[in-house]
Amino acid sequence: MKEHFLIKADENLPLIRRKRISPDIPLTVLDKGDSLTVDLGNHYVGYLSFNMWYVDEYIDAPVTLRIRFFETLGEMELDYSAYSGWLSESWIQEDTVKIDFPGVYTLPRRYAARYVRIEVVHTPKRLSLSDFIFEAVTSADESMLLPYKSDDGELEAIDRVAVNTLKNCMQRVFEDGPKRDRRLWIGDLRLEALANYYTFRDTSLVKRCLYLFAASDRGSLGFLPGYVYENPVFVSGTWHIVDYSMMYVCAVCDYLLHVGDKDTFLELYPLCKELMDSANACLDSDGILKVPEEDMFIDWCPGLKKTAAHFGAYLYTLDNLSAALRSISHPDAHVYSERLIDGRASARRTLFNEERSAFINDRDEGQYSVHAAAWMTLGGVVDGDEARRVMLDVISDKNSVKPFTPYMHHYTVEALFKSGLKDEAVEYIRRIWGGMVSLGADTFYEAYVPGDPLFSPYDDSKVNSMCHAWSCTATYFLRKYGIR
Amino acid sequence: MKEHFLIKADENLPLIRRKRISPDIPLTVLDKGDSLTVDLGNHYVGYLSFNMWYVDEYIDAPVTLRIRFFETLGEMELDYSAYSGWLSESWIQEDTVKIDFPGVYTLPRRYAARYVRIEVVHTPKRLSLSDFIFEAVTSADESMLLPYKSDDGELEAIDRVAVNTLKNCMQRVFEDGPKRDRRLWIGDLRLEALANYYTFRDTSLVKRCLYLFAASDRGSLGFLPGYVYENPVFVSGTWHIVDYSMMYVCAVCDYLLHVGDKDTFLELYPLCKELMDSANACLDSDGILKVPEEDMFIDWCPGLKKTAAHFGAYLYTLDNLSAALRSISHPDAHVYSERLIDGRASARRTLFNEERSAFINDRDEGQYSVHAAAWMTLGGVVDGDEARRVMLDVISDKNSVKPFTPYMHHYTVEALFKSGLKDEAVEYIRRIWGGMVSLGADTFYEAYVPGDPLFSPYDDSKVNSMCHAWSCTATYFLRKYGIR
Repeated sequence: MKEHFLIKADENLPLIRRKRISPDIPLTVLDKGDSLTVDLGNHYVGYLSFNMWYVDEYIDAPVTLRIRFFETLGEMELDYSAYSGWLSESWIQEDTVKIDFPGVYTLPRRYAARYVRIEVVHTPKRLSLSDFIFEAVTSADESMLLPYKSDDGELEAIDRVAVNTLKNCMQRVFEDGPKRDRRLWIGDLRLEALANYYTFRDTSLVKRCLYLFAASDRGSLGFLPGYVYENPVFVSGTWHIVDYSMMYVCAVCDYLLHVGDKDTFLELYPLCKELMDSANACLDSDGILKVPEEDMFIDWCPGLKKTAAHFGAYLYTLDNLSAALRSISHPDAHVYSERLIDGRASARRTLFNEERSAFINDRDEGQYSVHAAAWMTLGGVVDGDEARRVMLDVISDKNSVKPFTPYMHHYTVEALFKSGLKDEAVEYIRRIWGGMVSLGADTFYEAYVPGDPLFSPYDDSKVNSMCHAWSCTATYFLRKYGIR
Repeated sequence: MKEHFLIKADENLPLIRRKRISPDIPLTVLDKGDSLTVDLGNHYVGYLSFNMWYVDEYIDAPVTLRIRFFETLGEMELDYSAYSGWLSESWIQEDTVKIDFPGVYTLPRRYAARYVRIEVVHTPKRLSLSDFIFEAVTSADESMLLPYKSDDGELEAIDRVAVNTLKNCMQRVFEDGPKRDRRLWIGDLRLEALANYYTFRDTSLVKRCLYLFAASDRGSLGFLPGYVYENPVFVSGTWHIVDYSMMYVCAVCDYLLHVGDKDTFLELYPLCKELMDSANACLDSDGILKVPEEDMFIDWCPGLKKTAAHFGAYLYTLDNLSAALRSISHPDAHVYSERLIDGRASARRTLFNEERSAFINDRDEGQYSVHAAAWMTLGGVVDGDEARRVMLDVISDKNSVKPFTPYMHHYTVEALFKSGLKDEAVEYIRRIWGGMVSLGADTFYEAYVPGDPLFSPYDDSKVNSMCHAWSCTATYFLRKYGIR
């Protein structure tokens, strides 16, 4: 069965499209210790080549160059002499290469960058660099891109940067980030697929990614790994994440809704059923989803209490799945809608503080977070005026816990739209995605905390991914809701 | 004219032959900080590849490996944390590479090595290394190699190591050393060509190299550059060396003698004439060749006084050229034999100390060197018993200045053979080339001073070339003189 899914994934291996970017850099003469910065003019993913030649006389020893790639201007200012993060520092886009002969040199690795800095570490003679070419790669077909027009320059910029983010993450799979981790994560996949339906419309890539997860191992509790690898061979991830498993089910439902491919949906439905049954088996005596802390993601927000948000994601998935099944008159639809009714009641009873009209509860140790409010709203535990009040209160409260990632910002915006707060949703988009645009972003960042540009989930922003898939959904909202 | 020579050189661009060496290394599991040493079993020139794979789980970040290549076992013991030489440290065969995906990885650069050490600088997970392949390259055609057999194990070993040295230096040109400088030098070319006539017999490669120098620029005094580059384009060297220009003429004469290709000889003769006339124009009022100190090479021996040795190389060349011209009944032969007679007389008068029966003179500030004696003998300033006494005295004298390179050892041995000291020549070969064999050499070294294994002409032995063309001629002597 899994083998079968892998074959289907391989059938959909996308074409990688190549485009030569030629930054306008004049021939530059450099000696030992000199450096040169190349601005590609936009953020791209791909392969750098240039012509290294001799100036006064032939260069009679290998030339050593240190080449660093930066996704943003700000990254160039960081201290590269030390690294304090907990992810492998091999993720820093820096390579020291030796070039034996003058001529065109192509670095063998793929990079994600707008800026490149080349330092001459060793050369016995002066050299020149010229003819820079960045061969940009993506599986997105730009001729398929739907147009977006707005009289509002900020919204147009947000859409453009979001589309660029998505394009650069579309490779063999929907990568989470082309700098890091360059792999397929469920949380990113679902959001990329949503943005893709309104932009490049590559349904085959979505299908490939859905099949890759269908081929993966389940964890001990019956959930999907948060990520899989597929280059050069398929390997399941080892971190099984419950809310990501729910988002997988949502992605399958989205696929049916946007593509109408009932056969694929029905082929993947047994897996969705299995995942929902696994979640159902984890309900505690209060009817609340209870799983190990480390099996939940929700957001990179430090110290976040996740019970309410996590249960909201489960309810939201029940809602999506029962709607999808209903749309094809599938007999199982009622199973999930019944669970949804029970779940909403449990959530109301256990996770909602009626007196304060907020999702503040013992399960989350009294923590007051946007995460809980947004997911409970998306799960339909509150709606109408009540949902609006819950959302507005928690967002405006100075002391509430706020999202750290555009991933969670996405679901916050979705909750605002769902509860009818369209203006506030657009305002939120301007604040978060417009905030990044105002910082000069060519692509949207993995983490974005207004006022804290160096925040890193990994304790060192040098490994942050500044073109991150889960941040691309501003385009989805603008286009889906016709905001111009 | 020069363009014409370049076209002829390009016509002879050799085929590079490839052979896969598979060292017998079991799959090895490594973690961060671990290292692995691969013994290729012999010295080769080429490209390394291996399979890097995951062990416990997929390696979720690029792996950083530091890979060093060593020509000898002794090099592995050197301190690679500091470099004190005056050549570019880029010559040290060390690269730090990042590998993004498991699978077969091929380093892009060519190396010269017997041993490879791979250190894991960064990896988030354990990895395995296996399936090492070293794709060895040479333009030598091993099927053309003439056999050499001896009952004497040492002589067989010397021949085998010499042939291996030559083979590994035979690439697009006769390189001086495949680690460093990887270029065509006249001093090496002449000796490689001589060894080649008795081993691989690739006359086309000799021709290519002769044409490359024919295409080069002359210096202000009318001599050839000591070296040229030809990859990716032809570039003349900038150090014009008088004794190397003489050795070029000798190489052209050798080519006629061994190949019998009179057309090529006659095409290159005008250049030889020009070089000999340039030397003749540099004779001083005593009839001794006088050129700037920096335009002479002779040997890497520190503090060497070169007048006598250098003049000997000139006389030796006159002798070779007049003989070559005579062999084809060329009318110019007498020009050089007349100059030779005059030159020998000048040398005897000015450079030989009759009282001490040695080449000790004011021009060389009274320095007593093997270099002067050997070259004066080769130039025919002394012969017979006198030459034998001169040679034996200077070699056995504890205080005489001795050669530092196998290049000068070659001409010393040639002088011993020329003066009829065959046993002493073989003894000398055993002492120098056999000395390197007893140190475990797979190829012969650029510099060899018995008792001083770390001697470096560049003040740091890490950039020494341990497979150096000018050291390959032990095979020439053994085979030419039928020593078994």
